[in-house]
Amino acid sequence: MPRSYRLVLSCPDNLGIVASITSTIAEQGGWITEAHQFADPEHGWFFMRYEVRADSLPFDADGLRELLAPVAKRYSMRWRVADTDQRQRVVILASRESHCLSDLLYRWRSGDLSFDIPCVVSNHPDLKAFVEWHGIEFIHVPVTADNREEAFRRLAEVFERRQADLIVLARYMQILPSFLCEQYQGRVINIHHSFLPSFAGAQPYRQAAERGVKLIGATCHYVTEDLDAGPIIEQDVVRVNHHNTVEDMVQLGRDVEKTVLARGLRYHLEDRVLIHGNKTVIFQ
Amino acid sequence: MPRSYRLVLSCPDNLGIVASITSTIAEQGGWITEAHQFADPEHGWFFMRYEVRADSLPFDADGLRELLAPVAKRYSMRWRVADTDQRQRVVILASRESHCLSDLLYRWRSGDLSFDIPCVVSNHPDLKAFVEWHGIEFIHVPVTADNREEAFRRLAEVFERRQADLIVLARYMQILPSFLCEQYQGRVINIHHSFLPSFAGAQPYRQAAERGVKLIGATCHYVTEDLDAGPIIEQDVVRVNHHNTVEDMVQLGRDVEKTVLARGLRYHLEDRVLIHGNKTVIFQ
Amino acid sequence: MPRSYRLVLSCPDNLGIVASITSTIAEQGGWITEAHQFADPEHGWFFMRYEVRADSLPFDADGLRELLAPVAKRYSMRWRVADTDQRQRVVILASRESHCLSDLLYRWRSGDLSFDIPCVVSNHPDLKAFVEWHGIEFIHVPVTADNREEAFRRLAEVFERRQADLIVLARYMQILPSFLCEQYQGRVINIHHSFLPSFAGAQPYRQAAERGVKLIGATCHYVTEDLDAGPIIEQDVVRVNHHNTVEDMVQLGRDVEKTVLARGLRYHLEDRVLIHGNKTVIFQ
Amino acid sequence: MPRSYRLVLSCPDNLGIVASITSTIAEQGGWITEAHQFADPEHGWFFMRYEVRADSLPFDADGLRELLAPVAKRYSMRWRVADTDQRQRVVILASRESHCLSDLLYRWRSGDLSFDIPCVVSNHPDLKAFVEWHGIEFIHVPVTADNREEAFRRLAEVFERRQADLIVLARYMQILPSFLCEQYQGRVINIHHSFLPSFAGAQPYRQAAERGVKLIGATCHYVTEDLDAGPIIEQDVVRVNHHNTVEDMVQLGRDVEKTVLARGLRYHLEDRVLIHGNKTVIFQ
Repeated sequence: MPRSYRLVLSCPDNLGIVASITSTIAEQGGWITEAHQFADPEHGWFFMRYEVRADSLPFDADGLRELLAPVAKRYSMRWRVADTDQRQRVVILASRESHCLSDLLYRWRSGDLSFDIPCVVSNHPDLKAFVEWHGIEFIHVPVTADNREEAFRRLAEVFERRQADLIVLARYMQILPSFLCEQYQGRVINIHHSFLPSFAGAQPYRQAAERGVKLIGATCHYVTEDLDAGPIIEQDVVRVNHHNTVEDMVQLGRDVEKTVLARGLRYHLEDRVLIHGNKTVIFQ
Repeated sequence: MPRSYRLVLSCPDNLGIVASITSTIAEQGGWITEAHQFADPEHGWFFMRYEVRADSLPFDADGLRELLAPVAKRYSMRWRVADTDQRQRVVILASRESHCLSDLLYRWRSGDLSFDIPCVVSNHPDLKAFVEWHGIEFIHVPVTADNREEAFRRLAEVFERRQADLIVLARYMQILPSFLCEQYQGRVINIHHSFLPSFAGAQPYRQAAERGVKLIGATCHYVTEDLDAGPIIEQDVVRVNHHNTVEDMVQLGRDVEKTVLARGLRYHLEDRVLIHGNKTVIFQ
Repeated sequence: MPRSYRLVLSCPDNLGIVASITSTIAEQGGWITEAHQFADPEHGWFFMRYEVRADSLPFDADGLRELLAPVAKRYSMRWRVADTDQRQRVVILASRESHCLSDLLYRWRSGDLSFDIPCVVSNHPDLKAFVEWHGIEFIHVPVTADNREEAFRRLAEVFERRQADLIVLARYMQILPSFLCEQYQGRVINIHHSFLPSFAGAQPYRQAAERGVKLIGATCHYVTEDLDAGPIIEQDVVRVNHHNTVEDMVQLGRDVEKTVLARGLRYHLEDRVLIHGNKTVIFQ
Repeated sequence: MPRSYRLVLSCPDNLGIVASITSTIAEQGGWITEAHQFADPEHGWFFMRYEVRADSLPFDADGLRELLAPVAKRYSMRWRVADTDQRQRVVILASRESHCLSDLLYRWRSGDLSFDIPCVVSNHPDLKAFVEWHGIEFIHVPVTADNREEAFRRLAEVFERRQADLIVLARYMQILPSFLCEQYQGRVINIHHSFLPSFAGAQPYRQAAERGVKLIGATCHYVTEDLDAGPIIEQDVVRVNHHNTVEDMVQLGRDVEKTVLARGLRYHLEDRVLIHGNKTVIFQ
């Protein structure tokens, strides 16, 4: 895939936004390879994602930012330009269950997803050997009732020191404290093992089994201070029936969890997700 | 499809149930064309559905009932024998929206589903002409804040007089009173326009749009006194995205609603559903 | 939904297309409510669909066409402007099976889909009463081995006289002659009861049962002279298992057939389909 | 999961089969925890899978075999009794692509699937380090146009020496010779990267892209001498659109390939698959 710049923006909907952006890019010979836009009629808000081939422009990403700054200002845009050559730094948090971590590491080492992993952090030592085999640092930060505050300060330091662009909770099973949710707003992705808003909180498969639902699901969402209530990125479901015990659901759920997390992560890494209040616009 | 008898039963799990039933049927030359059984390990309960060709037995459905009664007693079964030649009498309740009713009437007149419709009842007159074109009686029973009690007494009379085996709420939009829920326990099917338990109550599509879910769904369930909380028969979902307004969801939802209702109704009419507490066993 | 104009175009990919179009529309104050574009890198071809609010422009659809003509010429566009107030005239062809026709007529009478039906044509009289109840003319044109040529000439006359914009084969079960395929290129939609290219031709469910597939499907496509090989608009599948006979598959397939046909028809009616060689671009 | 014996059988359909089997088991106090049966009306053939708790019987698997032998003979059954304590020995064949192998090794090491892996064989050395990290032997057997016969004789020796119960082609990309297909009939599982019978043979994603299908899929099947035409165990699909290049399809397809292979393998390992001509009965 050739290098490209991704322009991602949102602003109050208005006449001429697309014309201004496209003219400005066209005047420089910019070749737009992918374009998505969406005007939300209810909130009068406009969203856009353009992918421009780097080699079609006479300058680099900063040049493109300079070029677009006046237009962005005119329309009060919230915007960014991402460079596909700048891989994001993703710190993965895991606990004991390895299906999501294992899937993410496969995607990392095979190049299926493009990102860097400065380290994996876990509150249990179980996955150390597997992580380290990949040449990735494994950091064990136990979390107990007594040391929560200290433990999460340590996590914050790790994120800081490793310059994390994104935190992925790969079935981490711990609730992040408010200060981390705030500091990394829109930059912490979680996979919840239910079709939210059904069965938020603990033991969603047990809840599902007790309610007798015919489909179980998984939800990839941004973490906010409200538990399991942040903006949803992706969801999917799988069929269950009366034969399936809670244990079966846990097993069946693993496959949908890892798939949904990988899809959500891909959208984020490819700058396809725009957060809009408590909802997301996904440009696939 | 040749005539057959359907034996449907549940009882405490025990040694020899299947052996007793199958020996008893085999001794009479009974030809079992379809067999399903399920032992719930958690509750120690056993469920079974057998379909036996009528022409393989030397007696009719009552004869089969007599034959099986001692076995049923021995194992404390809750059981019934249904005869495929006895079509169930289904009273359909509708309001203004016609997608579910229209689909059910298509299935009735094309023979896709086998049942009789003594009448369609609605709280609005809109669908009268369409129903009557099918040669089916249409009964208009308006429901207002003032006449609820009287209106539902009239409904009860209709059900009684038409000897309804089953009531189908085809987007009826009214909450049945407790006395009807009790009287027709396990015999009132509703289609709810959300993936329950998410978005119970009113305006589920609006709730879904506000929460920003990526899939919307529909749930076919038995009606109980607890609103939208009865045993679930069938569910399905359809994908939505940020482009979809509440109106789009209403439209997309209609297709999944009518499909899910038709599937749930089919399972019930074919005696494939066994209610077990607040859950269902579905023998497909 | 407020009246709008839909600009649909394709052309060789080139610098400045979007800028030219959007500037031209913006200068007139045109309010774009929905925008989709796609550049096919393999064939160097560009596709676009813009929806513009009618009341934001100082002229009507013809005015918009005049405005855009120079741009269209400059980029060698294949293009059209559709007016949402101009409902398309759709002639439906059916045979004996009514599930697709019944579903289309429900969508027509409920307003779920916006189109006019000048008439329904069938080679069998079975569905006459149902069609006529809707106030729609039913034309019976029997097709036999002997009268094929004459029958299809009569069909051509019907299409001509009723000024059909689109022909929908709602499980018509007859192969259209070449001259009709040519004359109505890109304007005849068929629903095939298999997941094409598997099981083209006759008795797809029998073929599926014999091959032992675990999913069956349906395909909505444009009709070309090559049987079941035209551009695909939409497909979907439903799960089957060893219990399912050919008859079960026919029944299960009906639900997916009617849903897939309705979705394909919606895309066409909303000008969301661009044909590109033997493939389609669908702007949802 | 407590130890159990799995009785799997098929035979000409006949009166009294179930009664004979269940009585024989019940007389010994055998506790049936899962029961599935299916009578194929078209071919007059009967299929059954019973799971019996080991600790409810006064003897071991061989005792159960002795007990059932007379019944099996009477009804001309093709049958076997599997012991859940006897893990199957599965030799995995891979090439360069690691998504399927990686997923299978995760399931093996996490206990998600119960089986032994005597070795992984590949025609390329790429995956050696990853396999060996698991403590599993990696055998590199290059296959070229010149050495095919010799290479596959070596494979046959490996299977023999390691007493392989099952061979899994995890995107092996080589066609097995007839003698291996015959020798391991019903014991070689392949994952094909298309929704068979569409796009058999080479480059299915390219074929799919050229045909313009709206869903791509994967098929897990038993290998026979006819390429990609053996009995299908499991299939699934994923939606694609005009944006998706062949490369995108390859990527999207990987997720469905690994899921479908894992499901097919699970059914086989749990003795849920009965081959019947060129079709399968799957007792889930």
